[in-house]
Amino acid sequence: MPMAVVWRDGNLWLLDQTRLPFDERVFHCDTLVSVYDAIRALQVRGAPAIGIAAAYGMLVGLDPGSDLPVLLRRRADYLISARPTAVNLAWAVQRMLATMASAVHNGVQGDALIECLEQEAIAIHEEDKTACRAIGEFGAPLVAQFPKVLTHCNAGSLAVSELGTALAPIYVAATQGVAVHVYVDETRPLLQGARLTAFELGRAGVNRTLITDNMAAHVMAQGEVQMVLVGTDRVAANGDVANKIGTLNLAILCQYFGIPFYVACPASTIDLETPTGIDIHIEQRHADEVRQVAGVGLAEADTPVFNPAFDVTPAALVTGIITDRGIATAPYGRVLAEIVAASLGR
Amino acid sequence: MPMAVVWRDGNLWLLDQTRLPFDERVFHCDTLVSVYDAIRALQVRGAPAIGIAAAYGMLVGLDPGSDLPVLLRRRADYLISARPTAVNLAWAVQRMLATMASAVHNGVQGDALIECLEQEAIAIHEEDKTACRAIGEFGAPLVAQFPKVLTHCNAGSLAVSELGTALAPIYVAATQGVAVHVYVDETRPLLQGARLTAFELGRAGVNRTLITDNMAAHVMAQGEVQMVLVGTDRVAANGDVANKIGTLNLAILCQYFGIPFYVACPASTIDLETPTGIDIHIEQRHADEVRQVAGVGLAEADTPVFNPAFDVTPAALVTGIITDRGIATAPYGRVLAEIVAASLGR
Repeated sequence: MPMAVVWRDGNLWLLDQTRLPFDERVFHCDTLVSVYDAIRALQVRGAPAIGIAAAYGMLVGLDPGSDLPVLLRRRADYLISARPTAVNLAWAVQRMLATMASAVHNGVQGDALIECLEQEAIAIHEEDKTACRAIGEFGAPLVAQFPKVLTHCNAGSLAVSELGTALAPIYVAATQGVAVHVYVDETRPLLQGARLTAFELGRAGVNRTLITDNMAAHVMAQGEVQMVLVGTDRVAANGDVANKIGTLNLAILCQYFGIPFYVACPASTIDLETPTGIDIHIEQRHADEVRQVAGVGLAEADTPVFNPAFDVTPAALVTGIITDRGIATAPYGRVLAEIVAASLGR
Repeated sequence: MPMAVVWRDGNLWLLDQTRLPFDERVFHCDTLVSVYDAIRALQVRGAPAIGIAAAYGMLVGLDPGSDLPVLLRRRADYLISARPTAVNLAWAVQRMLATMASAVHNGVQGDALIECLEQEAIAIHEEDKTACRAIGEFGAPLVAQFPKVLTHCNAGSLAVSELGTALAPIYVAATQGVAVHVYVDETRPLLQGARLTAFELGRAGVNRTLITDNMAAHVMAQGEVQMVLVGTDRVAANGDVANKIGTLNLAILCQYFGIPFYVACPASTIDLETPTGIDIHIEQRHADEVRQVAGVGLAEADTPVFNPAFDVTPAALVTGIITDRGIATAPYGRVLAEIVAASLGR
């Protein structure tokens, strides 16, 4: 399956996701600026993948003879400025700085400091893979029980690491011989389903069928969907789920048709500081994303547009949340707090 | 508001809907072939508009000195072959032939026969306008009560005649001073909402906001929608409604949020020969409509696709059906039969 971020022999390679699915181009990021540009231009996207790329980005083309603490703090600020609202980006870069401070405190410097930081970046990457694998293992029995799945947006290997979040149970179940079939919502306006999910499932040999977002109800009415499985940007303390616009649509359809609606994410996506979904600010994106597709105008340039980036699904519509620490079900409050505590106590 | 079909001084003018919304080109159809081509290439679309264009098309460039009965029967077959599954096309052309047969039986010929047929085509057009206006008058009080409307696809002046079906109550209410606001689903795959509905509402001065289809639930959750109002291709005898793919989605969302879901159509769209929605065959369209937008590829060319042209909304989800003979509500069976009977007995 295609990998968003690869670190090999001290070199960072990224898959250019802006060219997918037609051009599968992997490029070498050999300067700090090239990493910044790749993050800013969405060549690498998906919260965890951005964090991983930035952690490696701290090390790209680093001269062991320079004043590393000063240089790395500057690099951190610069990389964070590529996408200031990306929580994982800041988190990964700050974790690298904390590791540096600790090593410097212990007298580590030069090549040894770089080596130590490389191990930290690899650890961030490996922990993400481990979390994805755990989500996959916990979720695979559900996919075995409900092998006709519908998903939205891209929460796969391209957005995260090896297995993704929402797609991890699908990949693991497929490896176990389950005959999975996935309906892929194209996911307007930015079409991550058509461009990325349909592509990566195809490369992984998983049966999939692409539909427009408004076909979901009809496909469900035909009995072709047994489970909806999506990722999430943030889970509130009460189990409300923020995810790509269109997710709430699906959750309501699931309730009507009696289809289980599952969300997959690592424990780090559960935000106990956010009491409920009402407390989540919903970002409005540029109107041209709706007026155009791939740069081609669909509606007149002065057409008024509403373009929320995501929506909030109330916990009452969520059958379960598949995490790397097990599957949470309602009532969510205490279960989610326990999952977060177990994760932090690691 | 833009008109799909105009007949003036014996000349047929069509608005080229394939160029909308960027190029508002009206062209003169002065040969039979040009009418056939316009219907086939979807330059004129929407069941009633096609029927009206074809009725006038029977007369375009007709030589009064020719063997009119033979010629008109040939013209009828030819025009029907432009879109063999379009019920209104065949209906309008056959009504013209019936008028011809009756006139010929009464000894009418030459210029007088053409004059008689022109009156019949104008009658077809005027009856459609009258039906639209009646739908508008019956539906306008609902729009006054629920002025925040969401609609799907295009059931406006471009698809029908003057006022359209689903848009007629909106246009009439707006004329009466109601501050209407319409959310317009873009309506993938063919984007009739973005290209046509947003365009014609804008030209008519009605406030509208374009959204992608998957935003409807979020907009409803924000309290921004008080009524959903759509057209229909066919209403079954029990009140099940076939309409553009995505309509079922909206009806289910309306039930969840407690929002009224209305359908608008002339009595002629009620098909008492079809007992329920299960009996309606759902046409599959070409996969490239989903893989591409406006000729631009989104997904890989070999991506498996499901592309149903429409879906069926069960009568239980339909708050009411606004017809030119009044508003039908559940239980639909007898009410719809009475509406059809009243319509045929006219």
